[in-house]
Amino acid sequence: MERISALHTDKYQINMMFAHWVNGTHEQKAVFEVYFRSLPFGNGYAVFAGLERIIDYISQLHFTDEEIDFLRTQPENYPESFLQELKKFHFSGSISAVEEGTLVFPSEPLVRVEGTIFETQLIETAILNFINYQTLVATKASRIKQVSPQDTFLEFGSRRAHEEDAALWGTRAAYVAGFDGTSNVLAGMKFGIPVSGTHAHSWVQDHESELEAFERFAKAMPDHVVLLVDTYDTLRSGVPHAIQVGLMMKQQGKQLKGIRLDSGDLAYLSIEARKMLDEAGLTDVKIVASNDLDEATILNLKAQGAKIDTWGVGTKLITAYDQPALGGVYKLVARESNGKLVPAIKISGNPEKISNPGKKKLYRIFDPKTNKAIADYMTLIDEQDVEESKPIKLYHPTYPFISKGIKRYHAVSLLRDIYRDGKLVYDLPQLDEIRSHHQAQLQMFWPEYTRQLNPEIYKVSLSEKAYLLKMKMIEEHRTEKDDPSHGEE
Amino acid sequence: MERISALHTDKYQINMMFAHWVNGTHEQKAVFEVYFRSLPFGNGYAVFAGLERIIDYISQLHFTDEEIDFLRTQPENYPESFLQELKKFHFSGSISAVEEGTLVFPSEPLVRVEGTIFETQLIETAILNFINYQTLVATKASRIKQVSPQDTFLEFGSRRAHEEDAALWGTRAAYVAGFDGTSNVLAGMKFGIPVSGTHAHSWVQDHESELEAFERFAKAMPDHVVLLVDTYDTLRSGVPHAIQVGLMMKQQGKQLKGIRLDSGDLAYLSIEARKMLDEAGLTDVKIVASNDLDEATILNLKAQGAKIDTWGVGTKLITAYDQPALGGVYKLVARESNGKLVPAIKISGNPEKISNPGKKKLYRIFDPKTNKAIADYMTLIDEQDVEESKPIKLYHPTYPFISKGIKRYHAVSLLRDIYRDGKLVYDLPQLDEIRSHHQAQLQMFWPEYTRQLNPEIYKVSLSEKAYLLKMKMIEEHRTEKDDPSHGEE
Repeated sequence: MERISALHTDKYQINMMFAHWVNGTHEQKAVFEVYFRSLPFGNGYAVFAGLERIIDYISQLHFTDEEIDFLRTQPENYPESFLQELKKFHFSGSISAVEEGTLVFPSEPLVRVEGTIFETQLIETAILNFINYQTLVATKASRIKQVSPQDTFLEFGSRRAHEEDAALWGTRAAYVAGFDGTSNVLAGMKFGIPVSGTHAHSWVQDHESELEAFERFAKAMPDHVVLLVDTYDTLRSGVPHAIQVGLMMKQQGKQLKGIRLDSGDLAYLSIEARKMLDEAGLTDVKIVASNDLDEATILNLKAQGAKIDTWGVGTKLITAYDQPALGGVYKLVARESNGKLVPAIKISGNPEKISNPGKKKLYRIFDPKTNKAIADYMTLIDEQDVEESKPIKLYHPTYPFISKGIKRYHAVSLLRDIYRDGKLVYDLPQLDEIRSHHQAQLQMFWPEYTRQLNPEIYKVSLSEKAYLLKMKMIEEHRTEKDDPSHGEE
Repeated sequence: MERISALHTDKYQINMMFAHWVNGTHEQKAVFEVYFRSLPFGNGYAVFAGLERIIDYISQLHFTDEEIDFLRTQPENYPESFLQELKKFHFSGSISAVEEGTLVFPSEPLVRVEGTIFETQLIETAILNFINYQTLVATKASRIKQVSPQDTFLEFGSRRAHEEDAALWGTRAAYVAGFDGTSNVLAGMKFGIPVSGTHAHSWVQDHESELEAFERFAKAMPDHVVLLVDTYDTLRSGVPHAIQVGLMMKQQGKQLKGIRLDSGDLAYLSIEARKMLDEAGLTDVKIVASNDLDEATILNLKAQGAKIDTWGVGTKLITAYDQPALGGVYKLVARESNGKLVPAIKISGNPEKISNPGKKKLYRIFDPKTNKAIADYMTLIDEQDVEESKPIKLYHPTYPFISKGIKRYHAVSLLRDIYRDGKLVYDLPQLDEIRSHHQAQLQMFWPEYTRQLNPEIYKVSLSEKAYLLKMKMIEEHRTEKDDPSHGEE
């Protein structure tokens, strides 16, 4: 587990820590919740990921001498006593989070952090940096995999990932959400993800002929031969040469595993290549395709009858190409005032951007007859735990006229304790368990919510108490002013 | 300098290394060139970045015992003798590259790698991973900065960057291309980039009132106060409170540095806030704006007369939001055959995708009267160095009917030796020199090429010899087949 620098943060966190320290307020308690406001890619759900990385970060979080020395050079002229305070820093707060692979929705707390304002402020940037990226890629991967769950999907994007960490953690996120393997060798070592790969165009170019290149590759790794057939001419050169080698291997009791198409009209080429392979008796040889694939191109290729068994997905997945940022935020929901935790709110002229105040619990409500999820439900921390014998009323966070009473239901709490008073109290499941958890999650939702195009909006609701608190706090802020300002969001 | 794992690569690189090793061809020489095919963001140029990271990587490149042990577990069953070969691995080849901050264009070699096929294959993935991302962000940053070069631009994207490395190296790329500072503290420590930041909404929320929050912040860091004014109501609460604190500071001989707007109609709010500040006599207080800014929104805000001095740019820069991948590729251009280097080509049904064969030199050709760049010019490595007394003829890489003779010119070679026979022979300039180099580069081009919208296409051309070689090799491949296949790219 690699240490992540305490300086992987925004300067304003350090400056707020400093200003609290100067004012003697740095040990006051604060509660922050991480959530996003809208789903990416037009998808009906997101897939939470990033928790392993948060644990790596928090568990080793401290300031090294080099880091303190750097802060000493800063124009803020931090006094030595503050730097010594940082030197002593370790995380002593509590963190709860949903489990990786869980389907999550806008406005609900994915991570809840409670501790001194000093420590909770420092870790905002890193937590958002990890969760925003990994949740984004997991969501994209789940969306791609769901086009054809029985096919094999491989992550191939290392060369287009945004630097080394993205290649590594992006692959992990993709695996969580259903991808079957990766080309990234480091991800194999760190996470045990199956790693695959055979050869590039350069292998073919670097021989006197394509046939020689294929023969030599087959000789070197006879049990792992997937031949890339588009270096010169797919159907006139690549596929015939691959068949020649495949038949030769068959005679030797070996099996050509597959061919790979990496350019051109993948529908046409795969159909023709399949015919040629089958006519040669090589019906077991799989067809792998790559080249700027995403859920839309894969769906279209399948609609055209493409004969592709394995999909190598690179750029569009690892960069979340069509929406490369999840707008996850980390908002103060409660603060210490006169020794008590009181709710905090962020007001905005845009109703969707007003935060839901108060430290909250998060439940998923199921219909006991179908075992399908009906809605997510947030209550305030001091409300009684949801009891399945008592009816509940779900309030839309913004529109009071949308509310719904439910009598018979089954409720599951979604937030797990990860750290309690600085101590790690959570056993991160094995990666394959996380992956199974994601598969199981998908079964808990009606297909209306998980479909690719125009999914139904899944309800995320507040309890009556949480709703009334929000309305009260908005009203308090509203009556302090006469009138909303122009242009405020 | 952090070690980058030798396994930060694609599995097929290891498998090609293995297959070469089995066939006894692993010490044959190969030359690869890195280039991209099209410019991102509709920009007229790209800004090369990523070289420092390549040097970090290559200089420490080796396989650790842990990495070898991992490879031993792989289904390929690599024999021990191959793993021992990897254990001995170090890079012994030669690398040339353009300097960071240089304006670069499609199809030209940005990096040229020469060595054994064994070593040149291994490093492809990492080199592309670094260059694709950093060049992309540097290009985006230059494009944003050029909207208003006299303004201050700060990189604020750490929370939306694709994991930790992207936050760090993306900031460096932005700084290379003209950004003036960052919020990322680690980038300050590693690269000496100026780091700035004051406070977040949570600072305001975490006090009994906005005024108290502002006063306490001013008390804590009186020389570095920029107040975020949109937590509750920008013009009715935030700005009046900031003015109150600014006047108080003035009485104490201190200076409120600025206010920050982070939501709402930034044009309207900045104009009104400027008026309010000026009327209060706080004419020196700067206005900082942030909130999903990019070159288009900044240009529009300026056209609306927004009174903004400093731009904090986050998501749209650090994720290169509108085009989050640069399609840089690493293509074999020459290979060893019978002890001699011979050119290699990658054929494609799409003329733009046919590679330019042969190991090449790259020149920038200037008009000696204006000192402005006319075109880039690639020659084969065995051609005489370009001499300014001899006329040259520029060939379009694809269309033979586009060529142009030039008699009077000034030629500058763009590729620098970085490694020679495994030894680092390049002194990476200081970051501020790289930044100045980029500024100087922009002056060498007519504004037609550097403008934001519909820039002129800058010419990248081949020498006659390089052009004729390409045509000859295409013809050789063409005559091996009767007819191009259907649907080939």
